[in-house]
Amino acid sequence: MSLKMSNDTVKLPFRPPVFEEDAMKVDEIDFSAVNCGSMPFRASRFEVYPGKKSPPDQHEVTECWFIAKGIGELEHDGQNRTNVKAGDVLYFNSYQSHTINNTGEDNLIIYSIWWKD
Amino acid sequence: MSLKMSNDTVKLPFRPPVFEEDAMKVDEIDFSAVNCGSMPFRASRFEVYPGKKSPPDQHEVTECWFIAKGIGELEHDGQNRTNVKAGDVLYFNSYQSHTINNTGEDNLIIYSIWWKD
Repeated sequence: MSLKMSNDTVKLPFRPPVFEEDAMKVDEIDFSAVNCGSMPFRASRFEVYPGKKSPPDQHEVTECWFIAKGIGELEHDGQNRTNVKAGDVLYFNSYQSHTINNTGEDNLIIYSIWWKD
Repeated sequence: MSLKMSNDTVKLPFRPPVFEEDAMKVDEIDFSAVNCGSMPFRASRFEVYPGKKSPPDQHEVTECWFIAKGIGELEHDGQNRTNVKAGDVLYFNSYQSHTINNTGEDNLIIYSIWWKD
């Protein structure tokens, strides 16, 4: 069963409260008004501040990052490093470690989508 | 069953050929190397050129747009119009019509994700 938003509403809200700390902030997208329970993924938009690094992350869910703005150095699987930029799409397997350094002068902005494989 | 990319590969390729026409170009993301058959969605990155409009679209699959860069005027459900910008997330129900005008001076860049509800 799903509750649908009226057809004239298309812009989605974000869930309060926003997670915010020294290095970054995360806004999770709120799909509850358009699709209760049947979304195949969850999603957020996060920003890493210039010169800062996201906390190392490793989890069961599979995750994709869609880089919207900026440049960074991705650290994954412990020691591996990959330069990334706006336009890149990244994929993390279940339990694959990942963290990102913002190596640019502006905020690094990324859409993240995660799901249980 | 899924074939997984080796753990040191995280940046996803795009499928050839790219769709390109007068108003826009579309690059579909190729998940085949990391996840054969079990992805819960498909995804692309598309760009609408300044002053141009994407072809009107309406389809069975549910779709989300994650706006990466630029500004635009969304037309949906026939006559409805909504101003949108980088950072916005849009949701289109099955068979909800949608098209977007790039009202800015740079390319409008959007990540699109679609799935069967």
